[in-house]
Amino acid sequence: MIRLLRPQRITRAFYSIEHPTVKLRDSSKFVALKPVTKLRSISSPDFITSTNSKLQSLIWHKPLQNVFVTKKPWAENTRDAMVQFITHLHDSYPEINVIVQTDVAEEISQDFRSMPLSNPAQPHVLYTGEIEEIVDKVDLLVTLGGDGTILRAVSMFTNMQVPPVLAFSLGTLGFLLPFDFKEHQRIFQEVISSRAKCLHRTRLECHIVRKGQTTTKTIAHHAMNDIFLHRGNSPHLTNLDIFIDGAFLTRTTADGVTLATPTGSTAYSLSAGGSIVSPLVPAILLTPICPRSLSFRPLILPHSSHIKIKIGSKMNNGPDNKVVKLSIDGVPQDDVNVGDEIHVVNEIGTIYVNGSQIPSTRNADALKKREKSIKNSGVYCIAKTENDWTRGINELLGFNSSFRFSSFKRDN
Amino acid sequence: MIRLLRPQRITRAFYSIEHPTVKLRDSSKFVALKPVTKLRSISSPDFITSTNSKLQSLIWHKPLQNVFVTKKPWAENTRDAMVQFITHLHDSYPEINVIVQTDVAEEISQDFRSMPLSNPAQPHVLYTGEIEEIVDKVDLLVTLGGDGTILRAVSMFTNMQVPPVLAFSLGTLGFLLPFDFKEHQRIFQEVISSRAKCLHRTRLECHIVRKGQTTTKTIAHHAMNDIFLHRGNSPHLTNLDIFIDGAFLTRTTADGVTLATPTGSTAYSLSAGGSIVSPLVPAILLTPICPRSLSFRPLILPHSSHIKIKIGSKMNNGPDNKVVKLSIDGVPQDDVNVGDEIHVVNEIGTIYVNGSQIPSTRNADALKKREKSIKNSGVYCIAKTENDWTRGINELLGFNSSFRFSSFKRDN
Amino acid sequence: MIRLLRPQRITRAFYSIEHPTVKLRDSSKFVALKPVTKLRSISSPDFITSTNSKLQSLIWHKPLQNVFVTKKPWAENTRDAMVQFITHLHDSYPEINVIVQTDVAEEISQDFRSMPLSNPAQPHVLYTGEIEEIVDKVDLLVTLGGDGTILRAVSMFTNMQVPPVLAFSLGTLGFLLPFDFKEHQRIFQEVISSRAKCLHRTRLECHIVRKGQTTTKTIAHHAMNDIFLHRGNSPHLTNLDIFIDGAFLTRTTADGVTLATPTGSTAYSLSAGGSIVSPLVPAILLTPICPRSLSFRPLILPHSSHIKIKIGSKMNNGPDNKVVKLSIDGVPQDDVNVGDEIHVVNEIGTIYVNGSQIPSTRNADALKKREKSIKNSGVYCIAKTENDWTRGINELLGFNSSFRFSSFKRDN
Amino acid sequence: MIRLLRPQRITRAFYSIEHPTVKLRDSSKFVALKPVTKLRSISSPDFITSTNSKLQSLIWHKPLQNVFVTKKPWAENTRDAMVQFITHLHDSYPEINVIVQTDVAEEISQDFRSMPLSNPAQPHVLYTGEIEEIVDKVDLLVTLGGDGTILRAVSMFTNMQVPPVLAFSLGTLGFLLPFDFKEHQRIFQEVISSRAKCLHRTRLECHIVRKGQTTTKTIAHHAMNDIFLHRGNSPHLTNLDIFIDGAFLTRTTADGVTLATPTGSTAYSLSAGGSIVSPLVPAILLTPICPRSLSFRPLILPHSSHIKIKIGSKMNNGPDNKVVKLSIDGVPQDDVNVGDEIHVVNEIGTIYVNGSQIPSTRNADALKKREKSIKNSGVYCIAKTENDWTRGINELLGFNSSFRFSSFKRDN
Repeated sequence: MIRLLRPQRITRAFYSIEHPTVKLRDSSKFVALKPVTKLRSISSPDFITSTNSKLQSLIWHKPLQNVFVTKKPWAENTRDAMVQFITHLHDSYPEINVIVQTDVAEEISQDFRSMPLSNPAQPHVLYTGEIEEIVDKVDLLVTLGGDGTILRAVSMFTNMQVPPVLAFSLGTLGFLLPFDFKEHQRIFQEVISSRAKCLHRTRLECHIVRKGQTTTKTIAHHAMNDIFLHRGNSPHLTNLDIFIDGAFLTRTTADGVTLATPTGSTAYSLSAGGSIVSPLVPAILLTPICPRSLSFRPLILPHSSHIKIKIGSKMNNGPDNKVVKLSIDGVPQDDVNVGDEIHVVNEIGTIYVNGSQIPSTRNADALKKREKSIKNSGVYCIAKTENDWTRGINELLGFNSSFRFSSFKRDN
Repeated sequence: MIRLLRPQRITRAFYSIEHPTVKLRDSSKFVALKPVTKLRSISSPDFITSTNSKLQSLIWHKPLQNVFVTKKPWAENTRDAMVQFITHLHDSYPEINVIVQTDVAEEISQDFRSMPLSNPAQPHVLYTGEIEEIVDKVDLLVTLGGDGTILRAVSMFTNMQVPPVLAFSLGTLGFLLPFDFKEHQRIFQEVISSRAKCLHRTRLECHIVRKGQTTTKTIAHHAMNDIFLHRGNSPHLTNLDIFIDGAFLTRTTADGVTLATPTGSTAYSLSAGGSIVSPLVPAILLTPICPRSLSFRPLILPHSSHIKIKIGSKMNNGPDNKVVKLSIDGVPQDDVNVGDEIHVVNEIGTIYVNGSQIPSTRNADALKKREKSIKNSGVYCIAKTENDWTRGINELLGFNSSFRFSSFKRDN
Repeated sequence: MIRLLRPQRITRAFYSIEHPTVKLRDSSKFVALKPVTKLRSISSPDFITSTNSKLQSLIWHKPLQNVFVTKKPWAENTRDAMVQFITHLHDSYPEINVIVQTDVAEEISQDFRSMPLSNPAQPHVLYTGEIEEIVDKVDLLVTLGGDGTILRAVSMFTNMQVPPVLAFSLGTLGFLLPFDFKEHQRIFQEVISSRAKCLHRTRLECHIVRKGQTTTKTIAHHAMNDIFLHRGNSPHLTNLDIFIDGAFLTRTTADGVTLATPTGSTAYSLSAGGSIVSPLVPAILLTPICPRSLSFRPLILPHSSHIKIKIGSKMNNGPDNKVVKLSIDGVPQDDVNVGDEIHVVNEIGTIYVNGSQIPSTRNADALKKREKSIKNSGVYCIAKTENDWTRGINELLGFNSSFRFSSFKRDN
Repeated sequence: MIRLLRPQRITRAFYSIEHPTVKLRDSSKFVALKPVTKLRSISSPDFITSTNSKLQSLIWHKPLQNVFVTKKPWAENTRDAMVQFITHLHDSYPEINVIVQTDVAEEISQDFRSMPLSNPAQPHVLYTGEIEEIVDKVDLLVTLGGDGTILRAVSMFTNMQVPPVLAFSLGTLGFLLPFDFKEHQRIFQEVISSRAKCLHRTRLECHIVRKGQTTTKTIAHHAMNDIFLHRGNSPHLTNLDIFIDGAFLTRTTADGVTLATPTGSTAYSLSAGGSIVSPLVPAILLTPICPRSLSFRPLILPHSSHIKIKIGSKMNNGPDNKVVKLSIDGVPQDDVNVGDEIHVVNEIGTIYVNGSQIPSTRNADALKKREKSIKNSGVYCIAKTENDWTRGINELLGFNSSFRFSSFKRDN
């Protein structure tokens, strides 16, 4: 039996899956589950830069084989779309292996009503397994839902190469600029035939060093949007000492501070007053959240920066005041405390200026293994046009909407 | 006889200089003027990147020979410093040729009171000539004064490689982070012996296309800080249509708009509400000036962007309303009119996305000649430490000055 | 004979008009011009406050008689509306005298095609004369056009009580929240029968004291929106010393500074970053324009404040740099120079804190005459509902437009 | 025995106090405690407005008698100052009765080392009792500490007239602009002899209406600085529907929103981006906290506004997401939930526009009693000069600190 995963924080403990075909509770005769471990390993495509494009061409060396399909949890329209999409893959691309999470497999198994056209005797085969098993196999990541679904799916790929992302929206639009689901057949055909283009988005890495700790063995957290510290429920402002490449920048007394990728410049950083940054700019945004100062203008730092933030003590030292909330891509993490540090660098690394050594999270064996596995850092998102971003800030953010427009709107 | 140059807009017409030794009006017996054309051509150094530094090491292939010394016009303390600096060069580095502008030569010629120590029979030799002649010879550019002096000196190097800049301040500090003049002997020794490090700063290029014009033969303007359009004295706001890489971004009704380098992010863009951007971030800032909109958040664009701004007509079409003021690094340019366009790209060029062809200013023969001459784009500024910028925004801008600090200051 | 005033920048050369009935060039048999001086003097209504309303009831003591109708110049749709409105007044309210400016009289005289219904033998009578003659007679001011038309019409009433304003728009909406012209019959009926309500808007007074001048005899300028100082075409920032009630506040190095009424908070002050202030808040906004500082947050001052701004000298003392542009309600005024001061107070006056004497413009005979004539300061604008302002900032400014809304809009 | 009060949230339960002289634990022979109930009732002074002052003169009708002295808890220097101040009162003004809170009485009782000079046989008499008993007796409120001490002391006076406040600071400065403690003798002499002047500061009232509740019997909360709603620890933004005088203004998706007095404009509202508002402006500031919108400019509303905020539901309806944090003058209150409303009005009331009825908290018997007891709303703070505020924003906030100043500072 398969236990449903909790959607928000990914826990990985669930019961073993029988081989060769996993049995489903209330199993469907139209679906067969197989262990993802049977599939060949990940085969990363190449991303080719041209002088006439801001995007990279996605070229498959070996044919695309393993497609991991994820979706927004418990939303009926995304479930329908998922079944429709998988059916299309099985019908039109029998060589493609479809991977889903175990809970999703259970959720959608009753929704397949027929066998694939090309092979009427065979049920729909879905490959599944533990997250750790899945992430080693994925050639292409497909998401059905909004920005949150993309962020969650990408966050499964920790300390490793994220496969190219093909995102579909179902009604609501997002800043990550997904395709309309209606276009799924056409787009997939382009992707599989190496005719798609990608926008490269960088990711941040967050390392936590607890007070008094000299080495840290925890894995690094990755952020596609942002990492922020905030006072949360505490009535007292945080005191945060910020260092750039080992040099003291400033102490801020504030609600908190957010470190964002250019992709995240339209998320929380925007609400806090930050500039809008094109995802093509290699930079890290440092935006204060309600600082107690007239002169903390948001900063745009090089993407090679090593940003250390140390939690300072507050005037009032009550127990509530010793903790600061840490959030990564909107997901709350364990609290950090007075004396703790977070270190944030770009996924591709940093310039090791004297005095700015990164915690050992990054340096040791993990790093070696990682360097071997990572051909390209960041996230390659399949894009519609060269100017998705320009259109996006206009259509989604209502950027620079003029006063006259408003009035005309009313006239009509 | 030599006519004085006007400091603001560099005009280049002046009388021929006699050979071999130019005669000065009220000439000084301690000074001899020689034509700059006699010097060997420019010899650019290499700029070496290391994995442990954000700066580039300045390495002289051929020995440093030709030093162009410029200064803030008509300021007594900079004149004294200039004489002191040139005297030091002549005394300690007889192999160095000192170049100055003709008007400066005249201005300072009376201030040399003795012969160089090393060669008591010889007067102080100053090389001079027309700007076009000077710029072909300069291995190192030395400025004495504030940021304005640096901007003016650098602006002489149009469509060509700017030599490394060694900037000294005399009292007032600047965002371009010059050295204190007291340190001139030590720093010059470091520079000449290939032990100095440089911060690389990008420059923007501005091309003007007049309405109805298909090709443009004028040279491009270069900006180290910013290029801005503004209504100036006109009572009516400008209407500016902004395109990024050929795609329409927005029409802004505003006082104007500024396009800035990261270096210029602490200049006019800051006043207009822009973020502070590290000079190491390859980006172009698009910051509106008093826009008639609640939602024109400043933008940070890739440094490969091609930004076209077309002057739109105003509601009221009086003669005053057909012109918009154009300013480059603070220097007013010829007005632009309704229908005219400015095209702004980074000095290193842009990605030619379909439909975003740059005016021929950039493309034709000039470009070929230019490509031959330009080894490195932008401006390499000799730096004090890895973290000049971090210290600069604190010390110069009063970045994030806390409220408590103010109160403590008053207590003491 | 009637001398023509130049309205704003409109030139109006046409032939002299005879008395007692002014003859029009190409005169219309349907129109007769009479001198406005024949009318009885202004009769101000009462404005009654109630505990259940943010507005004041407009109550006519003596019957409303003299209506001054103004319009946006040379806009065909406003001319048609004006003829339609005047015809309605003549047909339905024979006791009403219609006043127009002389140039408007000429402009519209050919457009009347019939006699008033109630009095078929009589032509349409229009009263006209010089502005100074007109303003002494007006019981009600009607404007046809946008915000600019209202500002221009109100600005005619200098140093005296402004009559209640009934504003109609023709298509374009404005921040001064006019009525749709379609409603003109209903609204006028409400106004004449003392059933209308008014929103009170304050005005600012600007006094200019030239350097070295001890007394000033010029009349004060009045602003319904704002008064601003700006560098205009000058390449150098202004230095402005700002004093509040005689106490030094700050020296700002900036493009300029704007002083606005709450009404003007949605005009230039908004573009410069100021807050949106309800017209019911008695306050003066001090908003810097592109200040060279990280910490010049906009200020909201008491409406009793006396704000003095003295033009400071610039670093560079060239002739261009000695002048600063002064603009009142968007209309350029004579330049002010280094050493000159502007003094701004609310029309209702200020608290004379020691050391903050206002220039004699305000104090002398003019003041006495003024005090006699002014029953109520500011401008009473006939309002639609209690919550025009709330609706206005939403509909006109696109206040707080949400990101999701944008996306939904696109979906549909 | 007396239990110490908790400083943060004022709880009022403590053991009864013996009569006539309360016994102290470890009682001091130099101190005698007496019940505050023995004192005569409050005697409010008059506040006289003059045409030459922005302040009100504080005139005592009946002689000043009952002085309530409060202090920052557990700070040694404030304890010393308190003993010094009380000793001065007892020595120099035997007619003055000194009131302290019971916990403070215990805290300081050991610190009196001698009898009052004027009456050597008598111990220092301190009046004390429950907060409800104290507040009915106080003619003058004296605070020793920073802004927090003033806010806490004033917050004891709920639904009643706050006595004039004389605030002293000990080292740290505050936005409420206290006197330096060194001046305490001179200032108190001015206050008691009706020569002091006051700055009037308004207070806000907050009424909470729980979902489904029709009437509310809880007392209103009062804020001298601000009232804010915030998501706190919740990972999801709040949805807040804001109404002004019964009319819908906007729905904001944000961290939260703050409603501030002009006094509070330099507190949290400033951090969130609000303008700086003079305390003399009768207004309420509505400043969003990190809104998910480019166009939520801060608003300045009339002080007669009735602002209703209704907690909207979130997309994600987990239990964490149903609560929103409410904070008044920095003190956390009970959570509010989806469907709850807060109503905020100025202490002096509002204009009851149709449809904007305030909760019965305000209307019923409480109101009548209140109206009888309240002669003047808001808080009269004894001021140093007419221009304390102007000086304060410069000295405390570092308002408009120029870049050049920073550089000069470094030069010296």
